[in-house]
Amino acid sequence: MTANSNAPASTPESRQAGDLQNERSQITFSTDDASCVFAGSREARDRNRWLLSLLRDHPDKVFDKDSRPFLGRTERFLRGQKVAQAYYELRNKHGLQKEDRDRLRLLLDEYIPLQVHESMGQPTIESQSSPEQLQEWGPKVSSGRWLVCYAQTELAHGSNLSGLRTTATLDTGSDTWIIDTPEPSAGKCWIGGSGMTTTHAIVMAQMSINNKSFGMHPFLVPMRDPETHKLLPGVFAMDMGPKVGAPAMDNGYITFDHVSIPRQNLMGKFQHVDKDGKYETRNQAAKALTRGAMTLVRVGLIEIAAHHAARATLVATRYSLVRRQGSSKGGAEPQILDYSSVQQRLFTCLSTSWALNFVGQHMRSIYNDLQSALQKGDASLLGTVHGFTSILKACATFQGLDVVETARRSMGGHGYSAASGLTDLERNQPTAGLTYEGDNHMLLCGPAANFLVKTLDSDKRPVRRELDFLFDKPRFDVTKPHEWLDEERQLYLLGSRAAKLVRDLSALRREAKDAATLAYLESALSSRASRAAGSYLILYAFNARLSLLRSASAESIVGIKPAAELLRALEDLRSFYVLEACVLRDVGDFVESGLLEAEQVSWARQTAAHLALRLRKQAIGLAEAADMDDWYLGSPLGHSDGRAYERMIDWMRLEPLNQQGLSGGRDEDGVLKGFRQAMGRLTHGEAQHFNGEAAARDSRL
Amino acid sequence: MTANSNAPASTPESRQAGDLQNERSQITFSTDDASCVFAGSREARDRNRWLLSLLRDHPDKVFDKDSRPFLGRTERFLRGQKVAQAYYELRNKHGLQKEDRDRLRLLLDEYIPLQVHESMGQPTIESQSSPEQLQEWGPKVSSGRWLVCYAQTELAHGSNLSGLRTTATLDTGSDTWIIDTPEPSAGKCWIGGSGMTTTHAIVMAQMSINNKSFGMHPFLVPMRDPETHKLLPGVFAMDMGPKVGAPAMDNGYITFDHVSIPRQNLMGKFQHVDKDGKYETRNQAAKALTRGAMTLVRVGLIEIAAHHAARATLVATRYSLVRRQGSSKGGAEPQILDYSSVQQRLFTCLSTSWALNFVGQHMRSIYNDLQSALQKGDASLLGTVHGFTSILKACATFQGLDVVETARRSMGGHGYSAASGLTDLERNQPTAGLTYEGDNHMLLCGPAANFLVKTLDSDKRPVRRELDFLFDKPRFDVTKPHEWLDEERQLYLLGSRAAKLVRDLSALRREAKDAATLAYLESALSSRASRAAGSYLILYAFNARLSLLRSASAESIVGIKPAAELLRALEDLRSFYVLEACVLRDVGDFVESGLLEAEQVSWARQTAAHLALRLRKQAIGLAEAADMDDWYLGSPLGHSDGRAYERMIDWMRLEPLNQQGLSGGRDEDGVLKGFRQAMGRLTHGEAQHFNGEAAARDSRL
Repeated sequence: MTANSNAPASTPESRQAGDLQNERSQITFSTDDASCVFAGSREARDRNRWLLSLLRDHPDKVFDKDSRPFLGRTERFLRGQKVAQAYYELRNKHGLQKEDRDRLRLLLDEYIPLQVHESMGQPTIESQSSPEQLQEWGPKVSSGRWLVCYAQTELAHGSNLSGLRTTATLDTGSDTWIIDTPEPSAGKCWIGGSGMTTTHAIVMAQMSINNKSFGMHPFLVPMRDPETHKLLPGVFAMDMGPKVGAPAMDNGYITFDHVSIPRQNLMGKFQHVDKDGKYETRNQAAKALTRGAMTLVRVGLIEIAAHHAARATLVATRYSLVRRQGSSKGGAEPQILDYSSVQQRLFTCLSTSWALNFVGQHMRSIYNDLQSALQKGDASLLGTVHGFTSILKACATFQGLDVVETARRSMGGHGYSAASGLTDLERNQPTAGLTYEGDNHMLLCGPAANFLVKTLDSDKRPVRRELDFLFDKPRFDVTKPHEWLDEERQLYLLGSRAAKLVRDLSALRREAKDAATLAYLESALSSRASRAAGSYLILYAFNARLSLLRSASAESIVGIKPAAELLRALEDLRSFYVLEACVLRDVGDFVESGLLEAEQVSWARQTAAHLALRLRKQAIGLAEAADMDDWYLGSPLGHSDGRAYERMIDWMRLEPLNQQGLSGGRDEDGVLKGFRQAMGRLTHGEAQHFNGEAAARDSRL
Repeated sequence: MTANSNAPASTPESRQAGDLQNERSQITFSTDDASCVFAGSREARDRNRWLLSLLRDHPDKVFDKDSRPFLGRTERFLRGQKVAQAYYELRNKHGLQKEDRDRLRLLLDEYIPLQVHESMGQPTIESQSSPEQLQEWGPKVSSGRWLVCYAQTELAHGSNLSGLRTTATLDTGSDTWIIDTPEPSAGKCWIGGSGMTTTHAIVMAQMSINNKSFGMHPFLVPMRDPETHKLLPGVFAMDMGPKVGAPAMDNGYITFDHVSIPRQNLMGKFQHVDKDGKYETRNQAAKALTRGAMTLVRVGLIEIAAHHAARATLVATRYSLVRRQGSSKGGAEPQILDYSSVQQRLFTCLSTSWALNFVGQHMRSIYNDLQSALQKGDASLLGTVHGFTSILKACATFQGLDVVETARRSMGGHGYSAASGLTDLERNQPTAGLTYEGDNHMLLCGPAANFLVKTLDSDKRPVRRELDFLFDKPRFDVTKPHEWLDEERQLYLLGSRAAKLVRDLSALRREAKDAATLAYLESALSSRASRAAGSYLILYAFNARLSLLRSASAESIVGIKPAAELLRALEDLRSFYVLEACVLRDVGDFVESGLLEAEQVSWARQTAAHLALRLRKQAIGLAEAADMDDWYLGSPLGHSDGRAYERMIDWMRLEPLNQQGLSGGRDEDGVLKGFRQAMGRLTHGEAQHFNGEAAARDSRL
């Protein structure tokens, strides 16, 4: 073989870079503009770039990921400690606020042990401390002298908080709380950062004073010695072992054996216990307002789902353009993205990632509205935001994971290689996102569905226009194929479907007969109704964003004035999302309820086919609008220069099994260490030869 | 905390063992009988147990998996070498035949580097060698002196074999073939066992004699020195690096730099080249028959998909019975399996795993029919078996992975822990199965759909009764809810739907207008038609198996006479599969085509709800019929004794991050190694404090 980077033009590798350039030259809009739209604004796009540069250009290269796919869990964990420390230095140095910090942690591309300190520990200290506590604890927590985990769930209890069994018993004699884990299954479990790292835990425990129970309350419990970092007496904590993703995170299992903490360590903003054991509540009006903060976590999960969906789509789209396969008919083989089956899957990924991105932005702005209102003491939006985020957290994380997996699988055999840059990704946040902050199935069947039924059955008109669909007349009047492209008709259709299912659910819940099967029917219908409402809300947000982009204020808000070609591409994407990811995927809902006839469904399929032809030409621009650079992607196969094959070979060389030396898999001759003692026994004829007699005699024992 | 295994009856852990025992006591059939039915016969069940005992009871414990979840890839690979060697000794010692060997490798629960040697290397040597080659090579290959990989796909070419670029050029002067990799992207890629292990490769290469091309042919190429195991001159091979699953497998990337091999190393059964370069074909009639062997690999994949589906279902079902959560209303909290949403998901898993299991057995028996016919020179079944396996390989692996993931996710937060025993599993065969031996999407759109259309459009009646549905009149006459339970009606419905889609596809393929969108429509319809046919075939097989079980010959074939209660449970399972996994999942197909009205769909939902109530009582028996012991499952959470919480805690202690010593994560004080130098800088106040000024100044850069 002649290893020659100037290989003749006929080799696959020599064609790849040109394939991508060629695609880019054909896009009819500005990818730079599209990236501003995707990020929300030019300002946001540039801010994201600056945040990423803090990591990429770090002088110690501590955030580099080249070797990461080849690390075992222990090494990966130890690397994560350095990443966490360097991250914390950056966030302190630049005085980053919450939104920037959240973004920067996302860009770390690694769950760090400080994740929960940042997302739950510090916010809880700041929002639930008494003024005295805050003065003492606040600076320690924000500087990182104290690292605080949030210890709520137990081994035997997750979602049912009233079932938690850890106790906090007041000992008036010593003026302390005794924190105790009554049995092993009451150990705090999955507590992020607690296994090896955190110095303190906010422990949710059943409060007991003079044999009277006061229910769950938060306590600040020191875990480790500030000087030596050894566990304090009575505290036991360990890492929970390997799991799906998050190798650098020490999710911990913690038990307390009659651990004494000062009485003053009960979080004091909303309650107080004096030294005689007198309990009183405080600031109860403000307490209700803290519920708003909970919904912010879910808004973040929607944004994160969109981010990873866009990332996977970008990688898979590029690779589908540089990978050629199939009948060549004399010329070059076709690009994989020229296959309809790949288009159907990848354009569904592409349109979904934009749709999730826009609904994330929409929810963020509703959340901001909520916060402004709460500042003024108006909590009327709270229930709606809670309902929306219950629906959309579940729908966005389901759809986001689906995109990541579909995109990776579209890459064929090489999609199984970590050189795709997606194998590790999909096992992290996108998979865990289905379960944390509320299991999706439970959310859809419970709070999401309850919110929808309650809104429908209420006398009052809803506070947000997004919910008007529940009260609209069902209608869908596509009488010609091209009307499927009509924005209003699409929205009415999805709204009508969702409203119908919510009405059915409301009616079902009023039925009483045969309660046993009713529960099953209700659970299934709840899930369908909530998902249908999710599709509607996502489309609503997509359209709202398009409206803004078309409006006179686009330039002042987004920082660009989108050209007609970009708007048209986004409209195509929206219509494709409606057709492939909403209507055709759940076509039964529409036909069963009489909203669509067979002919209209057939037109929907034809329209999707037409849109696929148009999207084929713009695909690379719409994917690259996610604006993720190669350092961040860590994907030899999805690299922006298109040199997938050369990069994949270079990448394979990094595998430790190919290395010599102490941590490598080979001896000085390049032979696998230990081969002679294991499989070498076979090749040297030292193994038992095949026992033909046994085979004949023993064909059935 | 008092760690006390005799904890009072009110703790979660004290209830778990009793919960499982209680469930088992309520089953109305014999689980032993059910396990014989699941395995196919009592004989097969007992054979499986014996094979597993060879691993479980190995004196050196080499197959034990306790520490495996905690190993990094390199250690896992080195362990795999020992597993492979010990496996090979066992297979030789007991003279195991192919079916037993395949099963034993499945039970290893680890892809070993000898996988391809066994599944492709040895069979190719045996079926494609000339008599002289076989005499010389056969014994070396079967004893393990030669370890042979099968090198076909290249970095830039997988499915399009005609695009492969490795060359074999005859050099008449030296009487050798020159094997050459013309450019890096033509390196052989994903070649199982080649990275570190195999001594030889069967290399598929473009044969060239006197500048004339003869197309792809197989050559036996020595790779490594038999004495030292070093790579031979001109041969380069390396491990491809981390990927989804298969950590003990060295999928390799191989290049050849003008490597000479004897002319006699062209596999000689079907072609011969003499020393002057004269090419002649041989045994062409027999060559056609080897196509049958290809289908066997796909039959195996169906069986494997069923096996893992059953395994995941077993684990998740047990855990759903010992996990209690929710409103307790005074008594114990409900078991998770009492929630309708969990029932819907897990009973779909349970019924799918049985359905896949039966269709695997059905396909195995058709394959055996094919082999018998081929022995007599009758190849009339070949196309049908090829078509069936194309359809069913794709459907079974899709559904199988879906079951594994659904089951794992049903376990809530703990499903993310490797203590589930499923996190590693789902990333192995179930995920890879979608792509290898034909990417599922390509199979469904290509060979599967082509076979169906060809059968429909043919003048001849098909050779197997399974295909009669294509010619039946569509009908479905459910006029009352309970008729949904009727076996014949179910089968007609699925058959009618599949036939309708195949007819639509046949018609679409005859249309010529607007070819560009036609390709998109055709691809989508092909996939739907093939999947619909797959559902039909699976149901056909399920019914065929039930018929056998009801017949007088059940006892002689299966080894038990199934009691009425067992048959009824299996019928319930079948109906649940039809309703939830076929009809309601794809309800659009049925309603759009006019096969079902809204009222009938509503009855289907009610019927599924009724069935769920009945299955709830039998679930543990139907799941445990998979007959997988705890040693094999490796699942603390799905252990047969139900002590999930205690076992999970014990298991966490094995995590290396919790260990002291050289390979552990902690120092002698139990503190994380290196903590002081990384995050310890934060806790000791050596980090930059939060820069409030920067925060204020710099809120937008």
